[in-house]
Amino acid sequence: MSAVERVRAAYARNAEAGRPEAWITLRPEAEVLAEAADVDRRVRAGERLPLAGTVVAVKDNIDVAGLPTTAGSPAYAYSPAEDAPAVARLRAAGGIVLGKTNLDQFATGLVGTRSPYGAVRSAWDPTRISGGSSSGSAVLTALGVVDIALGTDTAGSGRVPAALNGIVGVKPTIGLVPTTGVVPACRTLDCVTVFARELNLAREAVELMSGPDGVDPLARADAPAAPLDARPLVAVPTAEHLEGLADGWAEAFQGVVSRLAESGVDIVEVDIAPLLEAATLLYGGAFVAERTAAVGDFIQEHRDLIGTEIDPTVAGIVLAGTEARAADYFRDREKLDRLGLEGLARLGGAVALLTPTTTWHPTLAEVAADPLGANSRMGRFTNFANLLDRSALAVPAGVVDGRPFGVMLTGAPFADRTLAQLAERVAAPPVELFVVGAHLRGQPLNHQLVAAGGSFVAEASTASDYRLFALATTPPKPGLVRVDGDGSSIAGEVWRLPARGFGRFVAALPEPMGIGSVRLASGSSVAGFLCERVALEGAADITRFGGWRAFRDSVA
Amino acid sequence: MSAVERVRAAYARNAEAGRPEAWITLRPEAEVLAEAADVDRRVRAGERLPLAGTVVAVKDNIDVAGLPTTAGSPAYAYSPAEDAPAVARLRAAGGIVLGKTNLDQFATGLVGTRSPYGAVRSAWDPTRISGGSSSGSAVLTALGVVDIALGTDTAGSGRVPAALNGIVGVKPTIGLVPTTGVVPACRTLDCVTVFARELNLAREAVELMSGPDGVDPLARADAPAAPLDARPLVAVPTAEHLEGLADGWAEAFQGVVSRLAESGVDIVEVDIAPLLEAATLLYGGAFVAERTAAVGDFIQEHRDLIGTEIDPTVAGIVLAGTEARAADYFRDREKLDRLGLEGLARLGGAVALLTPTTTWHPTLAEVAADPLGANSRMGRFTNFANLLDRSALAVPAGVVDGRPFGVMLTGAPFADRTLAQLAERVAAPPVELFVVGAHLRGQPLNHQLVAAGGSFVAEASTASDYRLFALATTPPKPGLVRVDGDGSSIAGEVWRLPARGFGRFVAALPEPMGIGSVRLASGSSVAGFLCERVALEGAADITRFGGWRAFRDSVA
Repeated sequence: MSAVERVRAAYARNAEAGRPEAWITLRPEAEVLAEAADVDRRVRAGERLPLAGTVVAVKDNIDVAGLPTTAGSPAYAYSPAEDAPAVARLRAAGGIVLGKTNLDQFATGLVGTRSPYGAVRSAWDPTRISGGSSSGSAVLTALGVVDIALGTDTAGSGRVPAALNGIVGVKPTIGLVPTTGVVPACRTLDCVTVFARELNLAREAVELMSGPDGVDPLARADAPAAPLDARPLVAVPTAEHLEGLADGWAEAFQGVVSRLAESGVDIVEVDIAPLLEAATLLYGGAFVAERTAAVGDFIQEHRDLIGTEIDPTVAGIVLAGTEARAADYFRDREKLDRLGLEGLARLGGAVALLTPTTTWHPTLAEVAADPLGANSRMGRFTNFANLLDRSALAVPAGVVDGRPFGVMLTGAPFADRTLAQLAERVAAPPVELFVVGAHLRGQPLNHQLVAAGGSFVAEASTASDYRLFALATTPPKPGLVRVDGDGSSIAGEVWRLPARGFGRFVAALPEPMGIGSVRLASGSSVAGFLCERVALEGAADITRFGGWRAFRDSVA
Repeated sequence: MSAVERVRAAYARNAEAGRPEAWITLRPEAEVLAEAADVDRRVRAGERLPLAGTVVAVKDNIDVAGLPTTAGSPAYAYSPAEDAPAVARLRAAGGIVLGKTNLDQFATGLVGTRSPYGAVRSAWDPTRISGGSSSGSAVLTALGVVDIALGTDTAGSGRVPAALNGIVGVKPTIGLVPTTGVVPACRTLDCVTVFARELNLAREAVELMSGPDGVDPLARADAPAAPLDARPLVAVPTAEHLEGLADGWAEAFQGVVSRLAESGVDIVEVDIAPLLEAATLLYGGAFVAERTAAVGDFIQEHRDLIGTEIDPTVAGIVLAGTEARAADYFRDREKLDRLGLEGLARLGGAVALLTPTTTWHPTLAEVAADPLGANSRMGRFTNFANLLDRSALAVPAGVVDGRPFGVMLTGAPFADRTLAQLAERVAAPPVELFVVGAHLRGQPLNHQLVAAGGSFVAEASTASDYRLFALATTPPKPGLVRVDGDGSSIAGEVWRLPARGFGRFVAALPEPMGIGSVRLASGSSVAGFLCERVALEGAADITRFGGWRAFRDSVA
């Protein structure tokens, strides 16, 4: 496809993806098309552009020339004259920036709801959070609107939303990608990250963005770690630190561990208590004053905007560092250094620590009810990485209850490529998907399942508490809804898709469709199509036909 | 010489060196001799001990098992059960620790006078400061009491006293030598350093002490920089930043630069303003709170001891960080990072920055009159190194006005060996020395000049404002004293000594002799023997003989 075609497809996909809140600034299509046409011309002229036509979204705390940088606060907005080097390098390679994405304000949060531009909903389930702080970037990548998106990561912001949306999130070693032109969260800990559906593309983007720019004093030249051993050693947490995960996640994690072990990886269980204690210093001590140094003055000067243009939770966190003493910072720093030494020593010779990326996937309501508590649970495995100068990589590892489950590899600084090699072995098992409408054999969208590598397993029916509606979509589709009594069993088919293909399939789902968990008459649950309730208004209830095929036959 | 013989010689030398204030704890000779005898036994048994019998002094902020660690404050003292790894590694190699040396309290100072154990006097001139904070270690090395001595360095404490006493001071890259068992000054900046009269011995000690110990979280494995280019590029400050040096030091520095250039080094002048501005952050901002974190609580709890066991200047500096905010630390940190980037970029591809080590050599009285101001002037070229993670090396570079002048090479982290290679090219010019007594041709100590590589230049006489005294020493020696009127011209000889030999010669001088500047009848000044005033009490005035030889002839 040409760059122009890819950009057209991206805008079309965006229009049907149903997550307008993921953008803060979306460029006019005509302007972007003109840029794409130029890329096409250059390619035709023989220029080598490794990312020619790759569609890119940029988190709105990273400068893109000509677009406002808001960092999630309209009052903070400024108009940068230049692209951040990270953006400039992608563009120089032929990448095309569609716009700037929503985020937890000032990149402070792991939820994706702390933004006056709206809470960003998960790509898979609109009742749940996207994760954050790089919320819009992750969701737009997962939904297939863009090929790659830039995020940032200080405490997990480039990894948690990758996990919750079933995509790859690469958090490079601090300093590999310059943070010039990035609004600081914690300046010495911040990283520019990449989201993509495919690891190779994410890695390519990181490589293209890497290298000191002469402006970021923390930028570092790469010093690549050794490639992966033939039989690498990987550490996993002991059971104690895998408690309290979302239903089914512990089992899914053990599945990943088993598959890794079968693939020739040695696994060692490690007590990661020192690493988790180190992580508490990020918000529990004087380190938070680095956020105060970054945007504390701005918030102080705009206190009247707290609750409107400034998120109250974010303001509370940032201002909490105002009174912290420098001597306490140095004490905390020593504590961190000692915990890090102890925690990393326990990993022995392991090339990486494998963990779930996050611990649960709350609903928007659950986060609203307990903004700090819900957020805090999510950073268990991500919070220590930047504090302890780790490289990290979040990868999808399957689907649980119809929602993505992700794992993370955390390694030494400059082990970025080694982690990527290891991630190739975290192959998720195939996913079973229950379909009831246009994806059934012989129906107009069945080719999508086949293209994603799917194979038919069996005809099956839901449990008896579902109802089916005919939606006003093109092509016509049914909406399957579980009800509390007065339901029926609906006929459909179970298909098996490779995990990678499943991710691509979900990324292509148009609004109002979602993937969730469907109970079958057999008593088991599998992933299946669900439908947003809003789409049911005015839709005809066709439950009485017992299934889509029978309904279509009746109207044919 | 056996270890036992070397230890005996060290105690004998200490007894005549006349700097009792250099020690805080000197071990009983019998105990150390027993340890030396054991080293001799092990060597005879075939054990390989690279430092067998090397006599070592340890700054009293570094743990030696069984000796109190005072850090310069009796009230702070504790009794460590174990040697610091730096000490343990030297001992394991056959080094023999004589005791613990005086320091600017809590290693806070560059003068050597901030200690309730007494102000340490220069090895060359008892009216002048030793420099600090590693005062005792430097003086005992310069006087030939010990072969090597350990210091520490946060802002220049391992380099300034090397310069003021005419010896080598190696400040390795932060983390190469673990700081476990070292009382922190600024924990993240502190280095263990080595003083020696010979660079090779100092480097050997650093190599033996290097390597992570599993306890110091800041310890780093060596990652050696490239060896020296055949035609290396060395940066020197522009004239503006060489102003205000002690009389004759600018010329001496230019001499070093010229010799380096002649030896095949390319010299580039660089405006080091950003580095000097970075240095001001060490005491001028929130960084000082790292000292507060280290010993602020101790000083607060012992405020009643300020003026007795706690030095008032040190207390003032340490407590100044009490109120500093963590957010300001992070702002200062960013300022530092940006100044460092700019300052180091200006050095271009230079392998090192060459500077004078310090800017002047004040008298004890000058420091007492202005404790902060006098100290502050001394750190111009040393203060930025640790803040900006530099390796550094101070080497003697000649004698000016009868006192040593030293230069410093400051380079990248892990460029330690490269700097040592470069330092070999900083060969100081020969020194002319005026002698009037036992060192004259035919007199009993003349062999010392010959052994130091000296050669006779000419007979000469002092200007007419000197008097000569016969001291009660063995062998008999004269004391030459300049007077204000009623003096006479005294006959003597000018000898020329290679700089390295001159250092050894000074290191062997017994009390009450010193080296100073002597005015000759010709109007020029050269280095010459001076005599402490205290030794003149009861000494016969022999000025009327016109010289030592005529006096000796009269009593023969």
